[in-house]
Amino acid sequence: MDLKSPTLLLNEEQCRNNIEKISKAVYAGGTRLVPHFKTHQSATIGRWFREYDIDTITVSSVKMARYFADHGWNKITIAFPANRLESETIDELAIEVDLSIVVNDPDTANYLDQNLHEVAGVIIEVDTGYHRTGIPYNEPEKFDQLIEVLDQSQHLEFEGFYAHPGHSYGCRSASEIRGVYQDTVNKLAAVRDRYASRSEKPAISLGDTPTASTVGDFSEVDAVRPGNFVFYDLMQAAIGSCSIGEIAVALACPVVEKNAARRELVVHAGSVHLSKEHLVVGKGEKIYGRPVSLQDDGWSAPWDDSYMTKLSQEHGTIRCDEKAFNKVRVGDIIGILPVHSCLTANLMKGYRSLAGPWIDHLEGSRSQ
Amino acid sequence: MDLKSPTLLLNEEQCRNNIEKISKAVYAGGTRLVPHFKTHQSATIGRWFREYDIDTITVSSVKMARYFADHGWNKITIAFPANRLESETIDELAIEVDLSIVVNDPDTANYLDQNLHEVAGVIIEVDTGYHRTGIPYNEPEKFDQLIEVLDQSQHLEFEGFYAHPGHSYGCRSASEIRGVYQDTVNKLAAVRDRYASRSEKPAISLGDTPTASTVGDFSEVDAVRPGNFVFYDLMQAAIGSCSIGEIAVALACPVVEKNAARRELVVHAGSVHLSKEHLVVGKGEKIYGRPVSLQDDGWSAPWDDSYMTKLSQEHGTIRCDEKAFNKVRVGDIIGILPVHSCLTANLMKGYRSLAGPWIDHLEGSRSQ
Repeated sequence: MDLKSPTLLLNEEQCRNNIEKISKAVYAGGTRLVPHFKTHQSATIGRWFREYDIDTITVSSVKMARYFADHGWNKITIAFPANRLESETIDELAIEVDLSIVVNDPDTANYLDQNLHEVAGVIIEVDTGYHRTGIPYNEPEKFDQLIEVLDQSQHLEFEGFYAHPGHSYGCRSASEIRGVYQDTVNKLAAVRDRYASRSEKPAISLGDTPTASTVGDFSEVDAVRPGNFVFYDLMQAAIGSCSIGEIAVALACPVVEKNAARRELVVHAGSVHLSKEHLVVGKGEKIYGRPVSLQDDGWSAPWDDSYMTKLSQEHGTIRCDEKAFNKVRVGDIIGILPVHSCLTANLMKGYRSLAGPWIDHLEGSRSQ
Repeated sequence: MDLKSPTLLLNEEQCRNNIEKISKAVYAGGTRLVPHFKTHQSATIGRWFREYDIDTITVSSVKMARYFADHGWNKITIAFPANRLESETIDELAIEVDLSIVVNDPDTANYLDQNLHEVAGVIIEVDTGYHRTGIPYNEPEKFDQLIEVLDQSQHLEFEGFYAHPGHSYGCRSASEIRGVYQDTVNKLAAVRDRYASRSEKPAISLGDTPTASTVGDFSEVDAVRPGNFVFYDLMQAAIGSCSIGEIAVALACPVVEKNAARRELVVHAGSVHLSKEHLVVGKGEKIYGRPVSLQDDGWSAPWDDSYMTKLSQEHGTIRCDEKAFNKVRVGDIIGILPVHSCLTANLMKGYRSLAGPWIDHLEGSRSQ
């Protein structure tokens, strides 16, 4: 492969394996997978999901919903608190596709009801402990008030409850992750059960990669909405969601300098390629990625005791063990496993498949 | 202004003031300003520099050099260790413009000499203490070896020495910054003086915003190459390079949720808009930005005791004081002063001037 400058490599086979594994696990319990497309933001990669009977997707912005609607998806949930200022685009989308939005307060519900012409489905987000957005699970009167507004509205149709247990990112073992999952499901189910007598029982769903990758049985919920699993990354490996070998993207980058005294390589791979997301390893050291050797069919395991330890706008610095340092030369291309693949993909705005072709990303301009 | 979704606002007047202030300070000592365009990456903003007799610019990648060459700049320094794999593009650029590149080792010099057809100027980077790239200032034999290769080459012309004193970012007072500047200049001058007997005396230059904004007299160097000063940001304000009022960009973003119990606002402004760069304030709290109120002619001072304290892909959480919390409503648009404007600009890929028009950014697709 003729690589000359920072390029995000995609191992299509591993990516498809990740999709298959999660699909099978979720379907086994009779639950629907409604994958979150915020990680790959790619029409091409989206199509790979069709092979696993996926017909409904989750996105995190109106812009992403617009993009995937333009690429043939007609059942879309925007899992981000509805921005009333975008009601015009929400309305256009609701005409074209089976759209669900997140609405968490009566005032926004009223505003949207007055400004939409089409009907949009509404999911209410439940805060089960992550404390970012949503109505706290233990404030039933707030759910009552909001559902009353929805029931009286003409353009909003209440569908169910959703939670993002983002605190699963703090877990470091499968049993911790299962604990977060079960706690989240219990709280979601309790909220739902309050409305069990409705003619249509509200659906419950949740979405995060650690629980989707770890919990074997999703039969207590109607749908799961993970996103990152499509690529995984070093953070997910640290959490325990995946093995390092399941990571499906690596940033290929040229080595431009070596410093023997510090045993450091400098590569063209900075915060404009990888993002500033870091992990803490060993005795509290921040790292921004792990180096791998590129091979014809992908890449090696990460080099022993070698980490990207510094990152500026265009420069990345890799502190190496002696063996790794000695085998690399200026002018080589190496790979970096990213800490957070969603952000790296969003910065690179396009992928190069190991098989050769470029793969699209929302707003990417590269096509050769 | 009709803002509906995250938009990077540019205060053109403040930006031009920042350009004027630095230009005057640098020119006062008879030194050249060779501004670094990695921060704005904008052909339009680049043109504003022409009014201050700027004809030579600095960039940090071959891609950026290509972009600015296409937009009429014909004297360009790529201040990043030359990537030999891009020698073809470097050669094309050297035909079209007066190009200088950074070469820090004899092997790369030999490679480029053999692969270029045109002549490129060469600047050697001196490591004066930042320990990222460059030849350590106190290893004279390495400079000798490299300069000997350059002198024997047909396609590389040695021009001088450059340092990026990035350790100035660790300063927190003007006197500390001046200390880093003087130390850097002393080391650069000592390296240069070793080659004082050459027919053409090597030029010395350095580039970073803290010293460029703080040191009054640049007469000891031939050129300075700062970049961030064009916008400044919260990090530069913390270092002491600028006042908060001199920050020329703010991310406009919609408020989508309020949580009274935590006194938090949630905005559509995440790590895909601002970047994950943080600052540590108060008792060790990480912040990702400071909220301001938008006004017709710009924005207010930052709200008292209110900070963006959490950031995920699309969500930003602002912990507010009571007054600020009470005055903001869901559906409002507020501004966020970024921690690191270079990274925010690179993510947003375009600016909206307070006067209305969209302003371009390399690889930006927005034009309306």
